[in-house]
Amino acid sequence: MSTLRFGVNYTPRHGWFHSWQDFDPARTREDLAQIAGLGLDHVRVFHLWPLLQPNRTLIRTAAVDQLVRLVDLAAEEGLDVLVDGVQGHLSSFDFYPEWTRSWHHRNVFTDPEAIEAQAVLLRTLGGALTGRPNLIGLQLGNELNNLVEHNPVTVTQVDHYLDTLLAAAREGLGAPGGLGAPGGLGSPGGLGAPGGLVTHSAYDAAWYGDDHPFTPEASARKGDVTTVHPWVFSGDCARRYGPRSPQVQHLAEYGTELATAYAVDPVRPVWVQETGAPEPHIPAADAPGFARETVLNVSGCPNLWGVTWWCSHDVDRSLADFPELEYTLGLFDSAGRPKPIAESLAATITELRAAPRTPERRETALVLDCTPSTRSTSGPGGTYFETWMELRRQGARPAVVLAERASDETYLAARGIKELLRTP
Amino acid sequence: MSTLRFGVNYTPRHGWFHSWQDFDPARTREDLAQIAGLGLDHVRVFHLWPLLQPNRTLIRTAAVDQLVRLVDLAAEEGLDVLVDGVQGHLSSFDFYPEWTRSWHHRNVFTDPEAIEAQAVLLRTLGGALTGRPNLIGLQLGNELNNLVEHNPVTVTQVDHYLDTLLAAAREGLGAPGGLGAPGGLGSPGGLGAPGGLVTHSAYDAAWYGDDHPFTPEASARKGDVTTVHPWVFSGDCARRYGPRSPQVQHLAEYGTELATAYAVDPVRPVWVQETGAPEPHIPAADAPGFARETVLNVSGCPNLWGVTWWCSHDVDRSLADFPELEYTLGLFDSAGRPKPIAESLAATITELRAAPRTPERRETALVLDCTPSTRSTSGPGGTYFETWMELRRQGARPAVVLAERASDETYLAARGIKELLRTP
Repeated sequence: MSTLRFGVNYTPRHGWFHSWQDFDPARTREDLAQIAGLGLDHVRVFHLWPLLQPNRTLIRTAAVDQLVRLVDLAAEEGLDVLVDGVQGHLSSFDFYPEWTRSWHHRNVFTDPEAIEAQAVLLRTLGGALTGRPNLIGLQLGNELNNLVEHNPVTVTQVDHYLDTLLAAAREGLGAPGGLGAPGGLGSPGGLGAPGGLVTHSAYDAAWYGDDHPFTPEASARKGDVTTVHPWVFSGDCARRYGPRSPQVQHLAEYGTELATAYAVDPVRPVWVQETGAPEPHIPAADAPGFARETVLNVSGCPNLWGVTWWCSHDVDRSLADFPELEYTLGLFDSAGRPKPIAESLAATITELRAAPRTPERRETALVLDCTPSTRSTSGPGGTYFETWMELRRQGARPAVVLAERASDETYLAARGIKELLRTP
Repeated sequence: MSTLRFGVNYTPRHGWFHSWQDFDPARTREDLAQIAGLGLDHVRVFHLWPLLQPNRTLIRTAAVDQLVRLVDLAAEEGLDVLVDGVQGHLSSFDFYPEWTRSWHHRNVFTDPEAIEAQAVLLRTLGGALTGRPNLIGLQLGNELNNLVEHNPVTVTQVDHYLDTLLAAAREGLGAPGGLGAPGGLGSPGGLGAPGGLVTHSAYDAAWYGDDHPFTPEASARKGDVTTVHPWVFSGDCARRYGPRSPQVQHLAEYGTELATAYAVDPVRPVWVQETGAPEPHIPAADAPGFARETVLNVSGCPNLWGVTWWCSHDVDRSLADFPELEYTLGLFDSAGRPKPIAESLAATITELRAAPRTPERRETALVLDCTPSTRSTSGPGGTYFETWMELRRQGARPAVVLAERASDETYLAARGIKELLRTP
C-alpha cells in the first residue's frame, strides 16, 4: 500500500497567476511555506501559455526558468510539484497566445502547427524540469476540454491531440542524453516515465457530458494515472442534493470509482486532482465538514493516488470578473490567513497519516451500461449516479463496472468483485 | 512655419514587442541609438494591452514603469516620443487581455466596463508620462479600427468610444495637481493638452472603406492632430498602379490633402504617422526611391506635421506567422544593419532640414462628393482618387475640398483655394 498524497493547487496570493509577469520569489516562498505548514506534501502549479510561448516559435527562456525556480522553491519547503503545461483555462479565463486568436485563429486541438507548437513547449518544459527530485510529473494542461467550446473537435481528434502531447511530455521528461532522471517521487510505485508522471486532465464533461469529445476512456487510459476533478457544481450536484448530502460528501469517492471502471488496468491509480468548496454551493459554514468528509470517504478507494485541494489562496477581490465562487475557494484568504477549512483539512490529513486506512474491499459493483451519448446517466441527476449513491447511503461500498466488462471473470477477479448489481 | 518632424515607429529588434516581457534597457538603448543615428527626431512606441492591464482592474505598475523608462531612454538619445496606449493591433496580431475574450467576451468598443477600463489605463499612462520633456503625446492606440472585425460597432458607438478615451488621455496628461507640464515639444504650435498631444489613429478603411464605422470625420476632427496611415497595399494601390507609379509616390501627399479636407480647422495639422515600403508591393530595389519620393512629395503639403516611417527594425524570421511583408519593413535588418532605404530616408531628411520647403500654395481643389457609403471613390481604384492623381501627374498640386464646403467662400479663402474642379 503506497502512502496517499495530499496537496493543493497553488494560486498565488498576490496577483493570482498574473503574478508570473512580476515573479517574486519571496512572495512565492511565503505562499509555499503557508501551504507546507498545513502538512500538505505537494502543490500543482500553472504557468500561462501566452507568457511561455508568445510567438509560435518563441518559448521564453525566462518564463521556463521561473517555472523551474518555483519548483525549486517548493523543494525548499519540502513540497513536491506537478506542473501543468498549457494554460489554457484557469478559473473561467482562457489564456491563448495571440498566434492562435483573432486574425490568426487556429484550432488549438486540430491545427497541425498549433499541436506541434504545444508539443515543443511540453518537450521544453520536460527538459527543463527533469532531474528535479521533487517533480511529481508534467501534465499537459489544466482541464484542456474547457477549450472545446471555442475549438470544436471530434473524439478522434482529441485522441490524436492527447497522444501527441503525452508523447512529447514523456520525451521531455525522459529525454535521453542526460535529461532524464530515473526514480524519485515522480514515479511512485514504479509508474510513469523515468523523470516523472505524464498526465492530462479534463473537467467533468469528460465523465458526464453526453457526446462530449473528451471521453472517459481518454481520461482513464491515456497518461500514467487518471486524474479526476469532481466538482460539486457539475451537474448542479450540491444544489440538487444539498451541501451536506451523501451525494456531495461521496462525490470524490464516486468519481474515483467511476474512473477506475473506465481503466483497462484494474489497479490504475486515480488522482482526485481538484475538489473544493465553492460558495454558495457549499456554504462557508459547511466547508470544513465537506473537506473532512470528502477526504475521509475517498481515502478508502483502493486505487486512490491522492487528493489535491482547489485551492491554496482566495482570489483577491481587487481583481475583477471572476465568477463569484472563485473568490472564496482558498484554504487561505487573500490576506494570507488560514480559513477554518484549512484547519479541518490539515487535521484530517494528520489523522489519516497517523492511522492509514486499509483500502476497502469493494466486492459489490453496480454495472454501468451507457454510451458516449448517454453518459449523463453517470452524472448528478442521472439514474446510474443516483442508484450508486442510494447503495452507498445504505452502507454498501459499491464499485463501478462497465457493462462491456461485466462478463469478464478474470477482470472482475482482479478487482475483487463478487457481485454485480444493475440499475432499475 | 513650424519645422517638419521625421521619425520612425519603433519595433524592437530582439523579440519584437514580446520583448516587453523581458525588457532590456541595454538592447533598447542600442536600438534607439541606431534610430537617432539616422537623424530622426522621434519614435512612436507601443506597449501591449494584456501586459499593461491583465485584469480589468489591475494595471501593472512594472509595465507602466517600463514604458516611462523607454521614454527616458529615448530622451537620452535625443528622441521625442509618441506613446500609443491600447495595443490592440500590431502587424496582424491582436493583443486582447483575457478579460475581453472567450468566456469573458466583451466588445471593446461598446461594453461600458471595457471602455471605462481603457479610460483608466489611458489616464494612468498619461499621469505616468506627463512632465517628460520629450513626450510628444499620448495616442489611444494603434489603428483601433482593426479591431472592428471582431468587435462590431456603429458610427455613433465609435464616436462615443473615441470621445471618452480622448478625454481620459487628455485628463491623464493634463491632470491638475502637478501632473501636467505646459508647453514643450508635446504642443508644437500651441496645440494639444498642456502635457502633449492627444490623438487617435485608424487604418485606411476609415478613409476609403464604404460604411466603415470609423469615419474620416472622426479621424479629422477628434484629437489634436489628424493622423493618417497611407499604406500602398490599401486598395491594392501599388499592385494596381505599379511600385514606381505617381499614385504610389504621391499617396502620402494625397492622404494628407484628403485628411485636410475633412477637418473643420483649415490649418489642422496632419501627421503621416505610418508609411512604409512593404515587399512585394514595393520591391526592395525600389524602396529607397519610394521613401525619398514619398517624403519629398508630402513635405510640400501646407498642413503636414511630420512623417513617421514604419518601421525601425525588420521582424526576425525566427518569429513565425507574420504576414510576409512584415518581415522586411525595417530601416534596419534583424541583425541591426541599416538597409539602403535607411540611407535614402536619412539623406532626404538631411536635405529637407538644410533647405526647408516653402509649403506649396494649393489654389486649385478637386471637389469630393461622396457619402459614408461611397467613400471608396476617394481610394485607389476610385474615380475621385484617379482624377486627383491625373491632375497631379499633369503637374498641378490639387487640394481636396468636400462638396459640402464648396460654396463656403470664407472657408475656401482660409485655405487659399481659388479654383474648384469636379470629377467627370
